[in-house]
Amino acid sequence: MAVAVALSRRGRPGSAPNPNVGCLIVKDGKIRARGWTQPGGRPHAEAVALAAAGAAARGATAYVSLEPCAHASARGPACSDALIAAGVARVVIAAQDPDPRTDGAGIARLQDAGIEVVFNVMAAEARRAMAPWWTRRMHGRPFVTLKLATSLDGCIARADGTSRWITGDRARAHGHLERAGHQAILVGRGTLDADAPSLDVRLPGLEARSPKKLLLTRGAAPAGWTAVASPQAIGDVDSLLVEGGAGAASAFLAADRVDRLLLYRAPILIGGGRAALGDIGLADLADAHGRWRLADSRMLGSDRLDVYERAREG
Amino acid sequence: MAVAVALSRRGRPGSAPNPNVGCLIVKDGKIRARGWTQPGGRPHAEAVALAAAGAAARGATAYVSLEPCAHASARGPACSDALIAAGVARVVIAAQDPDPRTDGAGIARLQDAGIEVVFNVMAAEARRAMAPWWTRRMHGRPFVTLKLATSLDGCIARADGTSRWITGDRARAHGHLERAGHQAILVGRGTLDADAPSLDVRLPGLEARSPKKLLLTRGAAPAGWTAVASPQAIGDVDSLLVEGGAGAASAFLAADRVDRLLLYRAPILIGGGRAALGDIGLADLADAHGRWRLADSRMLGSDRLDVYERAREG
Repeated sequence: MAVAVALSRRGRPGSAPNPNVGCLIVKDGKIRARGWTQPGGRPHAEAVALAAAGAAARGATAYVSLEPCAHASARGPACSDALIAAGVARVVIAAQDPDPRTDGAGIARLQDAGIEVVFNVMAAEARRAMAPWWTRRMHGRPFVTLKLATSLDGCIARADGTSRWITGDRARAHGHLERAGHQAILVGRGTLDADAPSLDVRLPGLEARSPKKLLLTRGAAPAGWTAVASPQAIGDVDSLLVEGGAGAASAFLAADRVDRLLLYRAPILIGGGRAALGDIGLADLADAHGRWRLADSRMLGSDRLDVYERAREG
Repeated sequence: MAVAVALSRRGRPGSAPNPNVGCLIVKDGKIRARGWTQPGGRPHAEAVALAAAGAAARGATAYVSLEPCAHASARGPACSDALIAAGVARVVIAAQDPDPRTDGAGIARLQDAGIEVVFNVMAAEARRAMAPWWTRRMHGRPFVTLKLATSLDGCIARADGTSRWITGDRARAHGHLERAGHQAILVGRGTLDADAPSLDVRLPGLEARSPKKLLLTRGAAPAGWTAVASPQAIGDVDSLLVEGGAGAASAFLAADRVDRLLLYRAPILIGGGRAALGDIGLADLADAHGRWRLADSRMLGSDRLDVYERAREG
């Protein structure tokens, strides 16, 4: 199942509006086929894997990161029917599909056809791999990543606004890779006016992945940009990367709309520079604790990247 | 030699005004004795190790982190003479002693007595282990460690000054251990007035290690404190820990008098809080790069400690 979950990550962010799912078909201890949701959301992961497996699917075990769908559409048959038709003997499922058209109906249909079904295997990991789709599906809002690039003393620029360059080549390239993994990127008005950022993905082969550009403003947005009035006013995006500046970052944190923090830190001291954040509405230091959990930490050249995830109930 | 260097660290900070040296005596592939400079500076590491080795020193190899001294004093004989008298066959030395009373004379005396001498083995590591003594000896100033305890966004307190607590128990205990390893601690006037810090070592068994207390001020110091007018005005201390606040930290950085940075970071966001540093005289972002090298990084509970060392020529 760990492999199926890893495969599911390959579907991001192109699978929207459908969930990014991974599927692995195994028989006699050997991997027969792999699949993940294709760009635009179709074919589904199971359809890709079954097509690759061909006759080898008969009597095999399919591992899927999300319950196979129970609803046919004009764009393809229901995956639960496809698994039955292929003669799969056993289906192992990570997370149950919260879509009301499936939500247990996929499992039931497989069982009715005499297929052995095991579910809730690595469900939390699978949901984490589908976090953008899951967050929008369950909460009607995007999964938000906030990126901060600072000096050791937490500055995002010198007092005069100079910020080229705090972090090094490898950290900036990683930032472009993160852009490619998001549906939309947002900056605040100050950053747009000061830096006129292109927000393109400047990585060979990934230029086409440049995401939608949002501007946090009460006013109008220039050509090529979409204006959003508040962090709460974004409903039509699965994954959002907030790139700055301090005003936009603080607005999303104050609204508790940040799910993941990317902290790039360069081994330099600036002193008296611009702070990464303004007021985020913290009433007491004690309230600040227990909200962020370190998920990853790595060196990118001489810079460090720490990834924190918001610890939320349920 | 790595063991001798590690032993030398045990002499800190009590060996002042003498260098903290480590000595290992090995014969037939077995460690026969270990020694390090004792509190107050005597006995020297070699004397401790030779006393422990007894007759086993005859024909043995002695590893010492600093050239054995060539000068006898009222407090003890010269270590080079003691090694000769004990019948040691071979002496391996890390760093040469810059003290003009020795400075090669210890090596020469050993060689004249027919002892095989190998020197400059792990010299940089040995000098690093003796950094406080070495810095004062060579530059007439203390080796300065700056401690900063911040949130992820680089704040040392909320806007109202509240800073209890940003870091957790384990990070604070580590801070007390660092205090015990320094001869003196310094704070600025604002920190003294606001926090009235005791700066004691609050660790069981180490209470007696509480260092001398310095106050960075142009005025007078209260009882129990010594006033120093500037970072450049401290000559009689080997190792200094600067604990805060932002004014004192910035003054030492602006004077380029910080050799080592201790950065404790708690996984919290404060937003709009007090910055760790004020102006440190940085004219250009490019000048900020290449000054700090990551020497250690570890988790202390949910806090991270990063240790950086100032990259200096020579």
